Amino acid sequence: MPGGTLSTRPAVFTSLDVHDVRFPTSEHLDGSDAMNPEPDYSAAYAVLRTDAGDGHEGHALAFTTGRGNDLQTAAIHALAPFVVGRRVDDVLGDLGAFSKEMVHEPQLRWLGPEKGVVQMAVGAVLNAAWDLRAKRAGQPLWRLLAHLDPEEVVSLVDFRWLTDAMTQREALTLLQRAVPGRAEREDELLRRGYPAYTTTPGWLGYSDEKLERLAKQAVADGFTQIKLKVGADLLDDVRRMEVARAAVGDGVRIAVDANQRWDVGDAITWMRALAPYDPYWIEEPTSPDDVLGHATVRRALHPIKVATGEHVANRVVFKQLLQAGAVDVVQIDAARVAGVNENLAILLLAAHHGVPVCPHAGGVGLCEMVQHLSMADYVSVSGTWTDRVVEHVDHLHEHFVTPVQLENGRYRAPLALGGGGEMLAASIAAHTFPDGPVWAARRAPQAVAAEGILA
Amino acid sequence: MPGGTLSTRPAVFTSLDVHDVRFPTSEHLDGSDAMNPEPDYSAAYAVLRTDAGDGHEGHALAFTTGRGNDLQTAAIHALAPFVVGRRVDDVLGDLGAFSKEMVHEPQLRWLGPEKGVVQMAVGAVLNAAWDLRAKRAGQPLWRLLAHLDPEEVVSLVDFRWLTDAMTQREALTLLQRAVPGRAEREDELLRRGYPAYTTTPGWLGYSDEKLERLAKQAVADGFTQIKLKVGADLLDDVRRMEVARAAVGDGVRIAVDANQRWDVGDAITWMRALAPYDPYWIEEPTSPDDVLGHATVRRALHPIKVATGEHVANRVVFKQLLQAGAVDVVQIDAARVAGVNENLAILLLAAHHGVPVCPHAGGVGLCEMVQHLSMADYVSVSGTWTDRVVEHVDHLHEHFVTPVQLENGRYRAPLALGGGGEMLAASIAAHTFPDGPVWAARRAPQAVAAEGILA
Repeated sequence: MPGGTLSTRPAVFTSLDVHDVRFPTSEHLDGSDAMNPEPDYSAAYAVLRTDAGDGHEGHALAFTTGRGNDLQTAAIHALAPFVVGRRVDDVLGDLGAFSKEMVHEPQLRWLGPEKGVVQMAVGAVLNAAWDLRAKRAGQPLWRLLAHLDPEEVVSLVDFRWLTDAMTQREALTLLQRAVPGRAEREDELLRRGYPAYTTTPGWLGYSDEKLERLAKQAVADGFTQIKLKVGADLLDDVRRMEVARAAVGDGVRIAVDANQRWDVGDAITWMRALAPYDPYWIEEPTSPDDVLGHATVRRALHPIKVATGEHVANRVVFKQLLQAGAVDVVQIDAARVAGVNENLAILLLAAHHGVPVCPHAGGVGLCEMVQHLSMADYVSVSGTWTDRVVEHVDHLHEHFVTPVQLENGRYRAPLALGGGGEMLAASIAAHTFPDGPVWAARRAPQAVAAEGILA
Repeated sequence: MPGGTLSTRPAVFTSLDVHDVRFPTSEHLDGSDAMNPEPDYSAAYAVLRTDAGDGHEGHALAFTTGRGNDLQTAAIHALAPFVVGRRVDDVLGDLGAFSKEMVHEPQLRWLGPEKGVVQMAVGAVLNAAWDLRAKRAGQPLWRLLAHLDPEEVVSLVDFRWLTDAMTQREALTLLQRAVPGRAEREDELLRRGYPAYTTTPGWLGYSDEKLERLAKQAVADGFTQIKLKVGADLLDDVRRMEVARAAVGDGVRIAVDANQRWDVGDAITWMRALAPYDPYWIEEPTSPDDVLGHATVRRALHPIKVATGEHVANRVVFKQLLQAGAVDVVQIDAARVAGVNENLAILLLAAHHGVPVCPHAGGVGLCEMVQHLSMADYVSVSGTWTDRVVEHVDHLHEHFVTPVQLENGRYRAPLALGGGGEMLAASIAAHTFPDGPVWAARRAPQAVAAEGILA
């Protein structure tokens, strides 16, 4: 308009860039389990940019294990029309509406619905938007979320298909009940950090010696829970469980994780063989889609707890796991469902059913992102961290701008702005697939060797 | 080898080509429902070629509703390494192993697992392989399947995660029980065709007059069941149901289909309002992932039947729908799960639980493909067609090499070789997105108009 200046024009989103970033983790069997013998931890990495001129960008990622990361990257690209060209304040000011627009897009939803690469793509874009909103608000994401009005939290959640388990009013009441204690819990969180457990000792590919050494180290580092991968060979698992129990003593919880390897009957038989070593929970005993199967396993194995969720595609399956009494532990993942919004729905459902949430993390960037959700849950949703722990795996943190900080077995509450998922530009460039230097070198080892000789 | 000839070298797969084919169906509201207001029926279309020199190719498709068909196409491309360069006889001779290799690929499975575009891509490649196998055997697919030994059928099925509901032995017994009646049922099928029902009258976008006219036409054409889309507006649905019931009379079944529109409570309320018009089944009352929700709806609405399945991603969810008594009708889809193999698993599960299978079809090519599964089920799995009907929608059949043939409300058993999903080359070329002439014209209407003036 005449006389107007650039600064009065509302800022718009100018781009959604996506990078295919992969780490060659299969070379060291870090991350090896019964279903993922050789994962290359990867990120379909999203960056939202605006013309606000404030220096802020929104960063987040969808995690994959290598092949297929290109499909995940393409799925995020497909969501660009939802955001590029739109006013930043409109989108960030109503992330509930933004979420629903993407989740319910009538043609794209056919590819799920609400599952697979499209669902994870929605999660990445939403999480990038939340990262940007937190940065613009001058807050770490956990604190931004923890300070939202209960009414806004409810507006962020998609209650479609949830109301037989939890109504909007019930969710609002739950959130309002937590308001009075928020300030005190925030102080406590900042002082003490959030409880963690570690999976670092327990990968399937590790020798007994390495398991023992790392398990002892975990206890020395202040962890009160470790986790072992199981499910490939029963005799191996019994031996490894014995090694681990001897290493950590009786006072430390040992969770075990079968990564979906078993049928229902196998899960029960196998876990009964491990029971003498007092496993704390069995994680992913069977298909992540099998609500009734988990319920059967849980009834049979009591008091061993049953945990699942890292591969659960959406809130509807979590709802049923809770309705059926199928799990003792809900394991959200920052990058599997439709972002912060759907994870808020799951935190509310779990709190409403009185079931603890112990997030899945590890991979690449998952610890950095998911810690914010548990911290917000503690301050303003469930209001407790009793029997709650966030997974910690000591891999790939060096690639992030604000890596997680563990202290005495607890996550220190991050003070840096945003949602935690921002990767270093140099790491993105080095690991871009297939043409970044890390992969170019692996693709043509002879050529690289020849270059070395010639140089 | 010296002295060998080309003809003694075993044939290998030379290519997996994939085409992004879209039909602008949104322009006429064919296919409109409560969740898909404006679908463009599309196919991520796969072609397997070999160097056998026998003229046979394997054709199949994954169905989508428009946007995202490029992602589905890319997902099929990603499976090329599983097939290109391999010996044709090795792959086609053990399609059970081939299926498991793709479904359980440890890195790609992270993107599901067993759901979304990767799952549908596995389905397309497997279905193309089955199409080729049937053509090489000189058989229509239904007849090839119906003549397999029970032992081979069991070897095709992935029993992972199924054994708490059905063991391999139980499946084998069921199949063996059907062997003595196979020949008689095959004759009956060839004589009479397989029962169908029609959705053609009932799209949401149609006027009452069009609904009435098409409903009467359906009865005149010999159908004993029609289907109406519901779920957008209750008063509209009551009126449309009244129109439809008056048009078809009392002797014809009217199924209704909400396409996932409702929460559990809504489904019950809404269907009670339609109950006076005697709806036969309510299809997709709520989320396709909500096993427990369907069970609740079914209990509340008895004797109205509950049907679902076209969006159910895999056999594990079907297993639970049956275990929980959540459905009266199982609706398989030829292109949603991991192909013929997983659909055999679902047919076996349904037969084991005594629940009829009434496939979802329509879209593009879904009738052509899925009829083979119901016919094989009749001859050699469940052994009955009582209360079984295959959906028929009268759209887009003209694009197929061997379109379905309906006669007096029944599918005639196809005699042409293969699985039915082969599209005409001219249709593929015309509708390729975005550069085929059908889409180029829509992208640049002014340019096309200008060309017309200049010509």
